[in-house]
Amino acid sequence: MEIITGGVCAAKGFTASGIHCGIRKNKTKRDLALIYSEVRASAAAVYTTNKVKGAPLTVTKNNIADGYARAVICNSGNANTCNANGIEIATETCRHLGEALGIEGSDVVVASTGVIGQPLDITPIKNGIPELVGALSTDGSDNAAEGIMTTDTRKKEIAVSFTVGGKECRIGGIAKGSGMIHPNMATMLVFITTDCAISPAMLSRALSSDIQTTFNMVSVDGDTSTNDMVTVLANGMAANEEITDTGADFDEFMKALNTVTVYLCRRIAADGEGATKLLECTVSGAKDDLCARAIAKSVICSSLVKAAMFGSDANWGRVLCAIGYSGVEVDVERVGVSFTSAAGTIKVCENGAGIDFSEEVAKKILLEDEITIEVTLGDGDAASVAWGCDLTYDYVKINGDYRT
Amino acid sequence: MEIITGGVCAAKGFTASGIHCGIRKNKTKRDLALIYSEVRASAAAVYTTNKVKGAPLTVTKNNIADGYARAVICNSGNANTCNANGIEIATETCRHLGEALGIEGSDVVVASTGVIGQPLDITPIKNGIPELVGALSTDGSDNAAEGIMTTDTRKKEIAVSFTVGGKECRIGGIAKGSGMIHPNMATMLVFITTDCAISPAMLSRALSSDIQTTFNMVSVDGDTSTNDMVTVLANGMAANEEITDTGADFDEFMKALNTVTVYLCRRIAADGEGATKLLECTVSGAKDDLCARAIAKSVICSSLVKAAMFGSDANWGRVLCAIGYSGVEVDVERVGVSFTSAAGTIKVCENGAGIDFSEEVAKKILLEDEITIEVTLGDGDAASVAWGCDLTYDYVKINGDYRT
Repeated sequence: MEIITGGVCAAKGFTASGIHCGIRKNKTKRDLALIYSEVRASAAAVYTTNKVKGAPLTVTKNNIADGYARAVICNSGNANTCNANGIEIATETCRHLGEALGIEGSDVVVASTGVIGQPLDITPIKNGIPELVGALSTDGSDNAAEGIMTTDTRKKEIAVSFTVGGKECRIGGIAKGSGMIHPNMATMLVFITTDCAISPAMLSRALSSDIQTTFNMVSVDGDTSTNDMVTVLANGMAANEEITDTGADFDEFMKALNTVTVYLCRRIAADGEGATKLLECTVSGAKDDLCARAIAKSVICSSLVKAAMFGSDANWGRVLCAIGYSGVEVDVERVGVSFTSAAGTIKVCENGAGIDFSEEVAKKILLEDEITIEVTLGDGDAASVAWGCDLTYDYVKINGDYRT
Repeated sequence: MEIITGGVCAAKGFTASGIHCGIRKNKTKRDLALIYSEVRASAAAVYTTNKVKGAPLTVTKNNIADGYARAVICNSGNANTCNANGIEIATETCRHLGEALGIEGSDVVVASTGVIGQPLDITPIKNGIPELVGALSTDGSDNAAEGIMTTDTRKKEIAVSFTVGGKECRIGGIAKGSGMIHPNMATMLVFITTDCAISPAMLSRALSSDIQTTFNMVSVDGDTSTNDMVTVLANGMAANEEITDTGADFDEFMKALNTVTVYLCRRIAADGEGATKLLECTVSGAKDDLCARAIAKSVICSSLVKAAMFGSDANWGRVLCAIGYSGVEVDVERVGVSFTSAAGTIKVCENGAGIDFSEEVAKKILLEDEITIEVTLGDGDAASVAWGCDLTYDYVKINGDYRT
């Protein structure tokens, strides 16, 4: 497997574009993105578990019920959620795009991100579609990645090449994250493309399995969005024998998919609203996977742990506290905690109690911008990783005055 | 029922004190508190559900297993949690206090609050006990309330008088809150005293029932502490016929207890770390109590709702979002949301969609320091209330550098 450039256009037969159509007032910010496959592609998606669901999710779910799609359109600046005519707007968006591309409106994946509960005017989208379609290119992944950003400060994009049945395949993705990030079942907005030939059923299986240890293990602020969605389009243009069952080929695909998703998870967490640091919590020695995940997630979700990491304060008692309220039965007297970064590793807790450590060395380690909190349990062999970010003044600033 | 002065000393036969014994470096801050009953009192307590439990909780649970106690001792500045010799320190504290008061060490309730995982030296406590006991007085509630404070900015104290079987009874309490506040089953540190005669079993029943709608409905930061504890001592000196069963007397006692606990909940939420506003979320029209509580709590726990309230931003979409991920099945198309404060009421969402409202009026309402978020569901008759606070720069400041 090899990291390559090109994002969602790395896979054969995919083009993309991103433009400013006018949903946002800021004319320098692209607010409409498109990904297009030359040929019909297997499509899989997972969605938020929030009971309040964005209208685009309902329309997308319906459109890919047959297992196939050709294009993805996504606007930023408005979530098209809690609007009386949301379904109509999302459906019309698909229809207009279908006409411009010469495909069925029902072969379009539609997504929206931005403020909830503000009516979305279709005019800028409708008027922007010709330009959006005209701009499609194999270099367009960057612009599409920008078009889906809200409070994100950095584009999130990756691609890898891998081999299935002797054929070189490619898979790439773009994502937006930043705020209201605490995915449950699905996540944020993530669009992945691959030219690997894989049946819709196996693609769906791969995605549903992968997200349990990737996107579902990310949290910026504990708020599960109404519009989370991860979609994968697989157009088969790599000409490998189609993956229709488990086995070596499926495993290879899973590995490539996981490389893409883990990368995007880390980038989403690191670019959480106001974040200055990426936090990674690794848990080992757990009774089972679910226990390991619950603990890792509890630690990276703790406001107090997040604030301590912002202050580069080795306040490990807060890590123990978060382990304790995770809902998992743990033998507290076996718990160990270390902090690791590019500046080194320091053990701060052993057998559930503090050990002497140098505050100076701890501070140096915690001043880095990628921190790993290592939790060892001694209750079994299961392990897990979760990703989050620190809680900062800027998180409060961004969210105290986001809408107005 | 009538609000009276005196805090935990309002009830007959109770005295209290608070001193600086030296656990904290700041000599102007009291760090040791005592509450004492002339006679043996029925005792009930509820504790945190965190699996990592402070040593004092284990010792207290053991001490009041017989249903009675005479005194409460509490230090601030150190949680005595995740320390190898924590149980020993807590037990020794009870023994020393027992000797000074001429009571059994096993009749003492012991509590600690402060940093987790730092060894607690018993020397200042041991040396401070004579002064602490010497300072006991019926005016001591204020000093005791100060002695248990950590990052609290205001003392939390209340008392009420009520009548049971023709006898005037009194009940009063003190509390500390501020950070790591997300009680589950029990909460924070709250000490309540009453001279009402009530059996240990009925006292325990009253407390366990009350906290479901009071302390368990408070959240400052989503972090369930390792040291949460609520205790009630009832010494019977009001000379009413002892309450040993349900009925009118028990109902009267429950009402007085609830007046004390609701008051303390609101004060704890309003004085959450860094808070500038008390948030109250009322939910009505729910299917059942549990659904109502889950939704109210989900709303006041949302970082995004909290940050919006800090910014006085009527971003009701975040309220809808938090309702949606509460885990409760709701008919989104019937949900209504209003904001209320001393400056008025404004409806912002009806039937799950936004309605036209004046941003200017909304801003004025949200600039007040007590905000009620009213959620109506139309799914049934159950209702609930939860309390929280806004998320502010100061929360980050306090917790980014609390320990060092």
